[in-house]
Amino acid sequence: VADSGPGNQLAGGLATRLATGLAAAFPADLLRTSDADRARYETDHRRRYHGRALGVALPRTTDDVSRLLAWCNERGVGVVPQGGNTGYCGGATPDASGTQLVLCLERMNRVRSVDAPNLSMTAEAGCLLADVQAAAAGAGCFFPLELGSAGSCQLGGNLATNAGGLNVLRYGMTRSLVLGIEAVLPDGRVYEGLRALRKDNTGYDLRSLLVGSEGTLGVITAATLRLWPARRSTATAFVALPSPAAALALLQLLRGRCDDRLESFELLPRIALELVRRHVPGTASPFAEAPPWSVLCELASPAIEPLGELLQSVLADALAAGIASDAVLATSGSQRLALWAVRENVPEAQKRGGPGLRHDISVPVALIPRFVEEAGAELARRVPNATLVGYGHLGDGNLHFNLNWFAGAAPGEVEAAELPVRRYVHDLVAAYGGSFSAEHGVGQSKREELARYGSPVGLATMRALKRAFDPNGIMNPGKVL
Amino acid sequence: VADSGPGNQLAGGLATRLATGLAAAFPADLLRTSDADRARYETDHRRRYHGRALGVALPRTTDDVSRLLAWCNERGVGVVPQGGNTGYCGGATPDASGTQLVLCLERMNRVRSVDAPNLSMTAEAGCLLADVQAAAAGAGCFFPLELGSAGSCQLGGNLATNAGGLNVLRYGMTRSLVLGIEAVLPDGRVYEGLRALRKDNTGYDLRSLLVGSEGTLGVITAATLRLWPARRSTATAFVALPSPAAALALLQLLRGRCDDRLESFELLPRIALELVRRHVPGTASPFAEAPPWSVLCELASPAIEPLGELLQSVLADALAAGIASDAVLATSGSQRLALWAVRENVPEAQKRGGPGLRHDISVPVALIPRFVEEAGAELARRVPNATLVGYGHLGDGNLHFNLNWFAGAAPGEVEAAELPVRRYVHDLVAAYGGSFSAEHGVGQSKREELARYGSPVGLATMRALKRAFDPNGIMNPGKVL
Repeated sequence: VADSGPGNQLAGGLATRLATGLAAAFPADLLRTSDADRARYETDHRRRYHGRALGVALPRTTDDVSRLLAWCNERGVGVVPQGGNTGYCGGATPDASGTQLVLCLERMNRVRSVDAPNLSMTAEAGCLLADVQAAAAGAGCFFPLELGSAGSCQLGGNLATNAGGLNVLRYGMTRSLVLGIEAVLPDGRVYEGLRALRKDNTGYDLRSLLVGSEGTLGVITAATLRLWPARRSTATAFVALPSPAAALALLQLLRGRCDDRLESFELLPRIALELVRRHVPGTASPFAEAPPWSVLCELASPAIEPLGELLQSVLADALAAGIASDAVLATSGSQRLALWAVRENVPEAQKRGGPGLRHDISVPVALIPRFVEEAGAELARRVPNATLVGYGHLGDGNLHFNLNWFAGAAPGEVEAAELPVRRYVHDLVAAYGGSFSAEHGVGQSKREELARYGSPVGLATMRALKRAFDPNGIMNPGKVL
Repeated sequence: VADSGPGNQLAGGLATRLATGLAAAFPADLLRTSDADRARYETDHRRRYHGRALGVALPRTTDDVSRLLAWCNERGVGVVPQGGNTGYCGGATPDASGTQLVLCLERMNRVRSVDAPNLSMTAEAGCLLADVQAAAAGAGCFFPLELGSAGSCQLGGNLATNAGGLNVLRYGMTRSLVLGIEAVLPDGRVYEGLRALRKDNTGYDLRSLLVGSEGTLGVITAATLRLWPARRSTATAFVALPSPAAALALLQLLRGRCDDRLESFELLPRIALELVRRHVPGTASPFAEAPPWSVLCELASPAIEPLGELLQSVLADALAAGIASDAVLATSGSQRLALWAVRENVPEAQKRGGPGLRHDISVPVALIPRFVEEAGAELARRVPNATLVGYGHLGDGNLHFNLNWFAGAAPGEVEAAELPVRRYVHDLVAAYGGSFSAEHGVGQSKREELARYGSPVGLATMRALKRAFDPNGIMNPGKVL
């Protein structure tokens, strides 16, 4: 279908002319244009979004990126920046026109420097997150961004999408981990903002604006990141609880007693533990019988200190107060990993369990129990064949509020439910003062939601910023706005 | 002089017409136009910057601000937002033309809500910082922004200038304490961005852009702030050290052992202690004889825990390792205040000690010792009659790197030294990858420095943003850019 209409023939002709021009202007080594070579850049990691690119540019240097963008800007060629391609919202997938250039940063994968005494490092956008973590660890430091996809996502994508993950409670999202950035603007000019300073109050915060702009304002090519001293003590526990309200009470108890040593606080409903047990064999179960709710929490510190004792004492008080009904503490590194495996296998178990719908919502932390109760009851009424699997970063007020059809769905049933369910969940989130995208960004899949729920003045301001940065509209067209 | 030229007569006529129009459009209660009423808004707290305003608007509501800005925007009238007027860079002082309207937010001083379970509060721009702190404390929470001027500066000014202060080491600057903002754009539209979410990844970070824009992009009228659980344990010590390098070693030791419970780490040279002893009688001296260098450090935690023992044990190790030569721990709340009084009286003591020049610089934390040594030696050579008083937030790589003429200066001597000294210091800071304004902002006094040291692409981008927000150029004209 995509190639049959007259419009697409026009686009096809344009694509051919552009491809010829691109090949003439840049060395062959920088470009991939064959169908086979382009394929893996034209669809996302989960194969939900598909496009067709003019070609794929694989720059090795910031200067390469600069020349590529300048060339595209002069010709109005759309550019789709891409990292590890692991995003959930289609933000790195080109459209179907065959006229957009995918700009993949994977070759720019150098850790430029690690400065342990200054607790900072500078790395290029194409570094795998796991390699950034390892480089920090190699210098006795800790880079706290932690995602399930750490082994395949790239720093540039983390920066472009302001990635969240498992340690936001203590360290904030990616934006708060960045001291400086180097970025190429749409016309090819290079913003050299790599600074390793804790304090620099000299004008507008361009760094925070570019981080999280999902490739629509420019291309981040490198960043100077904040590091922390390496963690030398941890304590990890799975805690059984009667309700999300009890989980919130435990969160407050832990914050008050352990301060910012509390790094993770993940909420799981009974169904999540059951799914993992059923669909990911080999994953140890923390409890003989899955409790109604559970929390995976972790303390960490750079000091050698008895965090296990501290956690045990807080949990003993939680048990005595009836907040918790049971708790399992990891007593070794391998036990710790086993507890984390339960949490980390939830998305996979859910996928294996049956088709579903996903929502990445946040509300003020203290409203989570009420939100879960209200939305859970209403969804059970509206979509009786589906099961709610709402789990995730309770400490941040962020739940992955998903529905699954574990008994299988009739043809078209999930698709028919998608829009009404999304509308109900996101309307309720809005009524709670929450967000329809807590950590996954907007990309192409949540553009309509942004238009619907975004503040009108905020949206108008974002459009004005987009025009100021990118008057020719070449950067990641059709994403975010 | 200001009223004698023909240009100023023109401006005078314009000012009269504008004042008449303003008086016709808004209730008298909202405006102050007499010389006497305007006076305190036309000069800053330290009386360094002086201007003449068309009038002073004192809005009570966001809607008042909206109507005032719309009126000014239609007529191209410059608007100078003002809070407690305590800034150091003249950012809130109107120019001498008599055609700019000062918009003071002091009447918008309501704490709209405190949400302790969500660790957030919403307060209006005109709240005194001390009142914000008190409202948080009243709900069992802690708002960590801490400045010497807390009793007179206002939240709106803190937000507009992205204020730093004494707790940045742990909590970051003001920008990182903000969850959401309400702001009026130059044409009067209201951006309703008051959200109490830890995670919200839906588009560009307008909040971070407006925070720190010094009133040049719009007027922040309220903010939702992050809170922490109330501090229930603290430990405070003054430590004597041989050098800034030893202070850096102590910082690393403390961070590694106490993690983020380390909230403050302030470096003082011998001269600072001597100045306080000499010029602020009644301030207790931590040491019988002032050591070459000293550090005031503080641990804090919401838990009831033996932080004094922890600090004592770290300091014992520092003494044993030769990093520190002496240490005084506060053993009561009043001793703690007495130690802090030494630090907090340094600016006043310095002012009483003699005329001087100020610099608010930062470099990467680990480069502070080298910077202090190199700059100190060169300044002693270049300005032999002046004494270097470089002190401040070592934990953030930020020193107030001031020079004073304690034996008095010849007429014009300080003024003659100002530009060459500033050029030398800021050139060296730039060579170290540092900032010429770590926490005080740009305002009018550092505009030239920004033009000189700012990245050209960054500056061009800031100008494009300024045009996108404020095409008529009414917001705080002549500041920052």
